[in-house]
Amino acid sequence: MPKVYNPSAIAGPFGHYDHGVEAALPGRLLYISGQTGVAADDFVPGDIAAQTEQVWQNICAVLADAGMSPGDIVKTNSYVMDRDHIPVLAKMRKRFLGADHKAASTTLLVAGLVRPEWLVEIDAVAIKR
Amino acid sequence: MPKVYNPSAIAGPFGHYDHGVEAALPGRLLYISGQTGVAADDFVPGDIAAQTEQVWQNICAVLADAGMSPGDIVKTNSYVMDRDHIPVLAKMRKRFLGADHKAASTTLLVAGLVRPEWLVEIDAVAIKR
Amino acid sequence: MPKVYNPSAIAGPFGHYDHGVEAALPGRLLYISGQTGVAADDFVPGDIAAQTEQVWQNICAVLADAGMSPGDIVKTNSYVMDRDHIPVLAKMRKRFLGADHKAASTTLLVAGLVRPEWLVEIDAVAIKR
Repeated sequence: MPKVYNPSAIAGPFGHYDHGVEAALPGRLLYISGQTGVAADDFVPGDIAAQTEQVWQNICAVLADAGMSPGDIVKTNSYVMDRDHIPVLAKMRKRFLGADHKAASTTLLVAGLVRPEWLVEIDAVAIKR
Repeated sequence: MPKVYNPSAIAGPFGHYDHGVEAALPGRLLYISGQTGVAADDFVPGDIAAQTEQVWQNICAVLADAGMSPGDIVKTNSYVMDRDHIPVLAKMRKRFLGADHKAASTTLLVAGLVRPEWLVEIDAVAIKR
Repeated sequence: MPKVYNPSAIAGPFGHYDHGVEAALPGRLLYISGQTGVAADDFVPGDIAAQTEQVWQNICAVLADAGMSPGDIVKTNSYVMDRDHIPVLAKMRKRFLGADHKAASTTLLVAGLVRPEWLVEIDAVAIKR
């Protein structure tokens, strides 16, 4: 599991993430493309909770394909258009990463995603020995 | 060439990218700053196609300077303000990465770039043994 | 110190950053979450200069906690909503990175950050042997 840093000199994380996450290399460095709420059958649910759940299922599928697990994620970037959607993201993040693994995080409000029906996109970096 | 992952459990990539891209380290990890459509003589063309081509020429110049090539790119982040510009980005991406190399990708609509005349910005990470 | 690339084939960097920054691995790869202008006592100053200074103090605190320094940063991503704030970011970047170290950089105007009172967010990647 990567080593985490949450120095007392700065305010504690505002959510389920660590301020700094470190992995020692050599190892395998996996870049996961921005995942959206598109299921394997191309269905896109209309609400943020279902889309975010699908995003994480997609991330987990890529991790599994690489022989990795959510505990190997070191950084995520989350993109939404609506600030009110952030609590849903936070809840789903904790559910999929687990209580003991948080990973580094950046969350932004952007102007839009590639397709208008997409409400959220998350990409990730994972590292495994 | 990095190893790619496109698990059948999730919908196939919507364009010229892979869902997961992995490189084994040790090796050289190269971070390329966000490149824009600014040529070496500071000229900035007015249309998205010419700017995107310049962006990729800039990326290739940094790669060449580091003794790397587009095939060493593992991740790109693409930023535009206009959704209608995305097909141009997709076409140019395929042209410069080549048919056999796709890399991981995140594409976002943002509110703006540093200079108002810039229509597109792309940064990248490349890894070579 | 990481190796930098600023090929003459492209226009020189527009500010205090390098076009390409490379580190050789093995080593320790540190991902720093998006830092904002929140002090350890949760105070958030109202102006961009004070917030940006706090952002960098937070980044330095995470680096210090990991036994690293600003010279180990290889890439930053800076996010603001107001183009007029960018010169302040540029000045503070140079102050904290130092004249001799620049790092790769992407700067974007985004639609918003997680909390409305946040004016700037910067995340970073650092590498140390």
